[in-house]
Amino acid sequence: MAELTGRSIIGIEAGGTGEPSIFGINPATGESLQPGYAAVCEAELNRAVELAAGAFEVFGRSSGADRAAFLRKIADNIEAIGDDLAQRAPQETGLPEGRIRMETGRTCGQLRLFATVAEEGSWVDARIDHADPDRAPVPKPDVRSMERPLGPVAVFCASNFPLAFSVAGGDTASAFAAGCPVVVKAHQSHPGTAELVGQAVSAAVRDCGLPEGTFSLLYGPGRETGSALVRHPAIKAAGFTGSRAGGQALMKLAADRPEPIPFYAEMSSINPVFILPGAMAERAEPIAAGLHGSLTLGAGQFCTNPGLTILDDSTDLEPFVAKLAEWVGGTPGATMLNPGIHDAYGSGAGALGRNDAVETVALGQAGDGPCQAGAALFRTSAEAFLGDESLAAELFGPSTLVVTHDGPEMMLAVARSLEGQLTATVHGTEADLEANRELLGVLETKVGRVLINGFPTGVEVCHAMVHGGPFPATSDGRSTSVGTRAIHRFTRAVCYQGYPDGLLPAELREANPLGIRRLVDGKAS
Amino acid sequence: MAELTGRSIIGIEAGGTGEPSIFGINPATGESLQPGYAAVCEAELNRAVELAAGAFEVFGRSSGADRAAFLRKIADNIEAIGDDLAQRAPQETGLPEGRIRMETGRTCGQLRLFATVAEEGSWVDARIDHADPDRAPVPKPDVRSMERPLGPVAVFCASNFPLAFSVAGGDTASAFAAGCPVVVKAHQSHPGTAELVGQAVSAAVRDCGLPEGTFSLLYGPGRETGSALVRHPAIKAAGFTGSRAGGQALMKLAADRPEPIPFYAEMSSINPVFILPGAMAERAEPIAAGLHGSLTLGAGQFCTNPGLTILDDSTDLEPFVAKLAEWVGGTPGATMLNPGIHDAYGSGAGALGRNDAVETVALGQAGDGPCQAGAALFRTSAEAFLGDESLAAELFGPSTLVVTHDGPEMMLAVARSLEGQLTATVHGTEADLEANRELLGVLETKVGRVLINGFPTGVEVCHAMVHGGPFPATSDGRSTSVGTRAIHRFTRAVCYQGYPDGLLPAELREANPLGIRRLVDGKAS
Repeated sequence: MAELTGRSIIGIEAGGTGEPSIFGINPATGESLQPGYAAVCEAELNRAVELAAGAFEVFGRSSGADRAAFLRKIADNIEAIGDDLAQRAPQETGLPEGRIRMETGRTCGQLRLFATVAEEGSWVDARIDHADPDRAPVPKPDVRSMERPLGPVAVFCASNFPLAFSVAGGDTASAFAAGCPVVVKAHQSHPGTAELVGQAVSAAVRDCGLPEGTFSLLYGPGRETGSALVRHPAIKAAGFTGSRAGGQALMKLAADRPEPIPFYAEMSSINPVFILPGAMAERAEPIAAGLHGSLTLGAGQFCTNPGLTILDDSTDLEPFVAKLAEWVGGTPGATMLNPGIHDAYGSGAGALGRNDAVETVALGQAGDGPCQAGAALFRTSAEAFLGDESLAAELFGPSTLVVTHDGPEMMLAVARSLEGQLTATVHGTEADLEANRELLGVLETKVGRVLINGFPTGVEVCHAMVHGGPFPATSDGRSTSVGTRAIHRFTRAVCYQGYPDGLLPAELREANPLGIRRLVDGKAS
Repeated sequence: MAELTGRSIIGIEAGGTGEPSIFGINPATGESLQPGYAAVCEAELNRAVELAAGAFEVFGRSSGADRAAFLRKIADNIEAIGDDLAQRAPQETGLPEGRIRMETGRTCGQLRLFATVAEEGSWVDARIDHADPDRAPVPKPDVRSMERPLGPVAVFCASNFPLAFSVAGGDTASAFAAGCPVVVKAHQSHPGTAELVGQAVSAAVRDCGLPEGTFSLLYGPGRETGSALVRHPAIKAAGFTGSRAGGQALMKLAADRPEPIPFYAEMSSINPVFILPGAMAERAEPIAAGLHGSLTLGAGQFCTNPGLTILDDSTDLEPFVAKLAEWVGGTPGATMLNPGIHDAYGSGAGALGRNDAVETVALGQAGDGPCQAGAALFRTSAEAFLGDESLAAELFGPSTLVVTHDGPEMMLAVARSLEGQLTATVHGTEADLEANRELLGVLETKVGRVLINGFPTGVEVCHAMVHGGPFPATSDGRSTSVGTRAIHRFTRAVCYQGYPDGLLPAELREANPLGIRRLVDGKAS
């Protein structure tokens, strides 16, 4: 096992050895884990950001090939400590070793996918409009533009993905691919895992000869350190995955800065699943099985957890509900990530259980230990759902609320009432889907991803993925936090007019030395 | 001359005939112009937005070919009233007829450019990742995504471009091209011009058989009507060109909504021009001539007006300054757009003149009439400029502030001190530019467009243009308000997983019936 130091990483230096105040806690046992981590002081935070600003002048101009090599080196370094991660991360998160190994693989795959994008280079959307000195009444200038990195980016680790949405997760990978240095704020729930990955990234910075400020990893209390990072004038964008309250507080800080910055928060989503009559008639049991698997996966601690299941009263839905109830009732208790998440689930589920309009259909087994969550199945009517907005709030954990309606009109009313979501799912036969095009149309305006005959958990990391959606699913529905479209989070187009060829970035030079796809005088070439 | 009604356009209906409260004023004479325009009441505004939301369900799904036909029809209709516009707009704005005819041409050209983009269709960035049912440990789903329109968009007319940034200007053209209905708020400075263009757009909506809510044009007091529009829950994005104070107030409203929305404000920019030693030695006079033309063009009422000219004291700069002073001094007075802009220029220029660190080098001729502006040339030192942030505030009008420095280090300090800008310009010989790569690098992080050996006014409408820049030049430096990249202001990517081919948008169907460029399994095709 690599040695854990309990210190932040400020460029190539270790942070100070102050009083350790942040300890990982094993949620299965309540045991406090060593070492403790000292919070960064203001001077350390400022130094990390200033180093990042300095590094940007070099890293922001690095080639796609150099960034690809860096991303692959990070992936290699993380793979090399796979056993350490598989040992430490489960202790800090309660997640099983198999999940951690799979998430490690996903994280490395993601880094390598962004490496291919950076290396290929066409993502910059290079455009060239040639001059026409003879145009009347005024000559036409030579105008060229491409996406350029924004500058230093702050990345917040997520509690529920200690690897794939943390130190070297999607935001870090896309920021590096774009050419932005990254200052990571570790999540206090998995500080050791963060340090292991931070050391792997840091080693890659050194191995690749990049400026030390390309990467820093800071420990500190969530609000103070996170707020200070988002407020720092040299930070030019930030990415966050977490609660709606936390995300909205940081959104406000980002918008209220003297210079507002792009702030990407992924916050809350109840991911409705609509089961249409034909599908219910044809395959109630496999859908119930899939839904049960999706809602209990990882103790329900996914942003895409199917928290809402919408059923048509006129269908034969009781066997479906009974089957789901049976499986939910038989689900073993599972360890949640930390006491805060466990308590929030308990109080949210308790409130649902006490709501007069809500029936508690089934409760899963309670496990032993301080952070055990039992699965839960609730049921209400569309009328009640539409009349009580608390029923549409995210309940982060292994539960779903069944909402029954009396037909298409009410179903559409439920769909139209929804806030922005990461996903919506529709189960239907071909005839169902044809008859419910309006539902699909409504859902498309509400979510980042519409799934047909699938389940929302298990977000594929690929070029076409959109893991985003209108507010409050995210702070900025124009963006995704998974998939290669995410590289555009941290860029803006810059235009070069009348430049001598030799001063242009390689992507815009006349001879196209990188061989990328470009739009030249309006034509793809 | 087409008949002016003095009424808003709410879908296909005329707005109410309330008390006329908004009158165009001829800035050259102070004369009030007929007809007066009644402000919309709350119910009318709500109806316009609700019609837009209804229209979105149809227009948002229209084909690129249909949108192209619509955009071209608007252009045809505007061209058909070219004489009416050339008669009315100069009365309302003080801009000469030739400028209005040129701006009409630009506006129609812009609409037709967006028509080609909508028709060609590849702008949606379609991506397809095929399924792999045999992948272990979990099958790979079929995932597809493309850009889709956001919904109804609010567009604010700008005072300084009564056509190209107003009713059927860049924001409207890009919103229509993307598939978003538009609710325009007319500028009170040119209400008749707005109605003429509004009638042309309205006729195109009817001729193309589009839902009436595709377009509305509202009159009302700036703050109230504009705020109500930005706050309306069915408005999903807004575009604005105007003052920093006005833009920031609306930015705050957009961010503080229960559902925050993208808000694109183009606000303020001083567009620095750096003249390097070799260029000064070789061609001081042509640069002075070009600069004089650029700073006095249109009475200096361009967002890209070169308000800051940075010179090296070690060069032979006095002949340059003397020449510029001679031309500025000989510049005839020009009519500004309205009393508000005229008064702001007067008080800003007065404050500069009274600043002890600033020398008034030359003042242009004063004209006759209520809104006449004289050109002005001011001068200060880099030290004074760095010590007094009021010197970096935008002065909207025909003036520039010369800042002299003692060499590269101070020049870079001035460049680094700048807030976000729309443009920066560098005049230099090949050797100058080679020696000043660091300056170019700094400027690139500060602006949307860097020009070499040109002048910032005269923004080319083309695919590669970026008319944007970091705050406070705009509210969102990731975007442009000119050029075809602007279509992405009003879109977000939507992902379709596991869809039957027939339910997918045409852009994502397997056979690629539209023949657009797509990214299929990571490869361009």
